[in-house]
Amino acid sequence: MKQNKYDDPGFFEKYSQMPRSTGGLNAAGEWHELRAMFPELRDRRVLDLGCGFGWHCRYARQQHARSVVGVDISENMLARARENTDDPAIEYRRMAIEDIDFAEQEFDVVISSLAFHYVERFEEVCRKVHRFLTPGGSFVFSVEHPVFTALAAQDWHYGPQGERLHWPVDNYQSEGLRHTSFLGSEVTKYHRTVATYLNALIDAGFRIRRLSEPQPAQELLAQHPEMRDETRRPMFLMIAADKI
Amino acid sequence: MKQNKYDDPGFFEKYSQMPRSTGGLNAAGEWHELRAMFPELRDRRVLDLGCGFGWHCRYARQQHARSVVGVDISENMLARARENTDDPAIEYRRMAIEDIDFAEQEFDVVISSLAFHYVERFEEVCRKVHRFLTPGGSFVFSVEHPVFTALAAQDWHYGPQGERLHWPVDNYQSEGLRHTSFLGSEVTKYHRTVATYLNALIDAGFRIRRLSEPQPAQELLAQHPEMRDETRRPMFLMIAADKI
Repeated sequence: MKQNKYDDPGFFEKYSQMPRSTGGLNAAGEWHELRAMFPELRDRRVLDLGCGFGWHCRYARQQHARSVVGVDISENMLARARENTDDPAIEYRRMAIEDIDFAEQEFDVVISSLAFHYVERFEEVCRKVHRFLTPGGSFVFSVEHPVFTALAAQDWHYGPQGERLHWPVDNYQSEGLRHTSFLGSEVTKYHRTVATYLNALIDAGFRIRRLSEPQPAQELLAQHPEMRDETRRPMFLMIAADKI
Repeated sequence: MKQNKYDDPGFFEKYSQMPRSTGGLNAAGEWHELRAMFPELRDRRVLDLGCGFGWHCRYARQQHARSVVGVDISENMLARARENTDDPAIEYRRMAIEDIDFAEQEFDVVISSLAFHYVERFEEVCRKVHRFLTPGGSFVFSVEHPVFTALAAQDWHYGPQGERLHWPVDNYQSEGLRHTSFLGSEVTKYHRTVATYLNALIDAGFRIRRLSEPQPAQELLAQHPEMRDETRRPMFLMIAADKI
């Protein structure tokens, strides 16, 4: 299934008001960790899968990437991304991640932020990205953590006073569809185990370089005490892998 | 801390009655997965860290390993291990995992089953094992899964009828000591995140070859329906890594 929730006007409106939409990368609690996993971007050809508003594409150019291609399935997202830059070295293409098709070794770096848990066949993404990358090229991405996606409810277990008692995990080994709710809309995600993410990369010919289960940066924790719960269970999984 | 719970007579007595103690490897729900991650053992020199009763040491010799060294801190365990074999190619040594000291490249394969969550400094184990291994040698081990060790209670969250509602996760990002209970005794474990296990291996010079968050084998599930809950949350984490 190729989901395109962001072209639903009500959903898009709500997403546009999230801190990470208005405040950009530094408003995203995990950005400091993802950035640290990027390789040197100077003079590199970068592909961003699920580029959204294009924050990461513009960041790559600030880091002197030679060129950047951002793909996204949502016309709304791409329209906003195009409004936000006139950089001729950034190209936005409308495309589902499932349909990406580029030349062999067309890119040096492939990045993706919080998109692959919407994609059914992660192992195909890995095979394609491996083909599009130059030898030694890097694949760096974040997804919702399997501890976070295991139960479709994606919510804390609460006590009688509404306090967050703990994060419930169940059905961890049952990979596949999760019908869950995001910004009041029903969205479809795919749960996979940590082992499946890593083994798919290894099987496709990648070497795992780094993992992260990030906590929000200290500055963000100081400004937003409600983010402290993000240290209680892993919400994101980030992986950096290199093409052997 | 170097814990030696197995030389506490009451604890040892109870441990000796567990299915995995009386029935051996095939009674352990995760054995079929760990075995699948082993490299070829024929003619290899094998080290087993936390060898207990020596089941894995004897298995390695059945697979024609050239020699096997099993180390364990417990005299009780080693006495039983020695009773169970007269194979001159198996040598048991009493030693804490924290104190292991062997020659450079003395082994081709290092294995460990459910021992490292008792060890405080996993990164030191990785550095030592890397030194003891030949280039291309393999390090294959299982630990209690971070989802399992995050909360010291290590128990399900129950409903009013005593039903297992889900597995609670909390304090995931707070690595370190967990005072928990095993077979009615207090034992000390160390919680680490999945990322920490993998990054420690990578930093020590290993390449990750395979991960597993195993479910019990189908035959065991058929024989022991109570094992079905083992598919609801990951209890074990297994990693195979090769010295680059």
